[in-house]
Amino acid sequence: MPIINIQVTKEGVTQAQKQALIKGATQLMVDVLYKDPQVTFVVIEEVETDNWGIGFDQVSMLRQQSLESNIK
Amino acid sequence: MPIINIQVTKEGVTQAQKQALIKGATQLMVDVLYKDPQVTFVVIEEVETDNWGIGFDQVSMLRQQSLESNIK
Amino acid sequence: MPIINIQVTKEGVTQAQKQALIKGATQLMVDVLYKDPQVTFVVIEEVETDNWGIGFDQVSMLRQQSLESNIK
Amino acid sequence: MPIINIQVTKEGVTQAQKQALIKGATQLMVDVLYKDPQVTFVVIEEVETDNWGIGFDQVSMLRQQSLESNIK
Amino acid sequence: MPIINIQVTKEGVTQAQKQALIKGATQLMVDVLYKDPQVTFVVIEEVETDNWGIGFDQVSMLRQQSLESNIK
Amino acid sequence: MPIINIQVTKEGVTQAQKQALIKGATQLMVDVLYKDPQVTFVVIEEVETDNWGIGFDQVSMLRQQSLESNIK
Repeated sequence: MPIINIQVTKEGVTQAQKQALIKGATQLMVDVLYKDPQVTFVVIEEVETDNWGIGFDQVSMLRQQSLESNIK
Repeated sequence: MPIINIQVTKEGVTQAQKQALIKGATQLMVDVLYKDPQVTFVVIEEVETDNWGIGFDQVSMLRQQSLESNIK
Repeated sequence: MPIINIQVTKEGVTQAQKQALIKGATQLMVDVLYKDPQVTFVVIEEVETDNWGIGFDQVSMLRQQSLESNIK
Repeated sequence: MPIINIQVTKEGVTQAQKQALIKGATQLMVDVLYKDPQVTFVVIEEVETDNWGIGFDQVSMLRQQSLESNIK
Repeated sequence: MPIINIQVTKEGVTQAQKQALIKGATQLMVDVLYKDPQVTFVVIEEVETDNWGIGFDQVSMLRQQSLESNIK
Repeated sequence: MPIINIQVTKEGVTQAQKQALIKGATQLMVDVLYKDPQVTFVVIEEVETDNWGIGFDQVSMLRQQSLESNIK
């Protein structure tokens, strides 16, 4: 009965990527811990870049300051 | 000072239902643990069905695949 | 498929109380949102009183300062 | 590598306030625990007042009932 | 900068399994979202079976009631 | 009514440090958002280094591999 919570910045995660995250995280539970996928939950939280900070800065600011900034 | 976090899929939870969740969860803390309701917090997180996975699949896909699918 | 996370201070929560929290929170999901209890998870997190703060203070300190302190 | 998660009601938190929260929370980790800010994450979650309960009530209801209500 | 939080029951997760969960979850972020593994955090929370409920029951009770019970 | 959750590795956080985290995080809510400290909660979660991963590795392994490793 695992719960996998994935927090990422909200920057265009596609439907296909969401499906891949769900499939991959669930498979990991099956492969490593022999969990039952029918009671394995994956919850993806997309967080606005204004609301995520790293190194004292908002990610939204980091994105503006430099086109090359590629902290992901 | 309990914190109750309720995560559900975002599928039309009404105002009345939210009030009932808050009242019920708070009352549970009072009844079972004798907690003070004035410092009992209930936070409801509604998660998009695209962002919730069970059994390898997005809930949004499960909803589409079958009108009868009633995993709740 | 709700997930209910209950955070409380670790102050002698009994087995019977844990069972009552699980039953009560699950029943709330059934009654209010018509959820399926077989895929309703309740997770109780007991937090050391040293690690919980309210009003600038550790709960463990509040407990020591006054036998009458009954913030719960 | 600390993770600081800040949950507040969604009531007009400004960009400047978000920056101040990120800077302040990160500095706290540096000052108190000597953590590296480059691997310190701050995530701000703004919760709708309909979805936050205290004292049996939705915050949105408390706000309506009284202009003087200033539980913050 | 993803944060992956994995909650499982505390039932003998080995060091090798923890390493496999960390490697697998991090690789998933790299493969699907092109994230930088150096700022990808994985946090595993092992929850006592007394503190995890499913279908109205404590997992610890389910384990006792039947040796065959294999909800995982 | 903010909730501040601080997750750090369990590596000898002292009582004085916990108090400083609680006071500092609460003061931040008062200074930046004018919140009421009496309904501001701070929860510190100390996570075993075996259970925290960064850059594909357990922190406990990183600590063993090099005395100089100072990712914090």
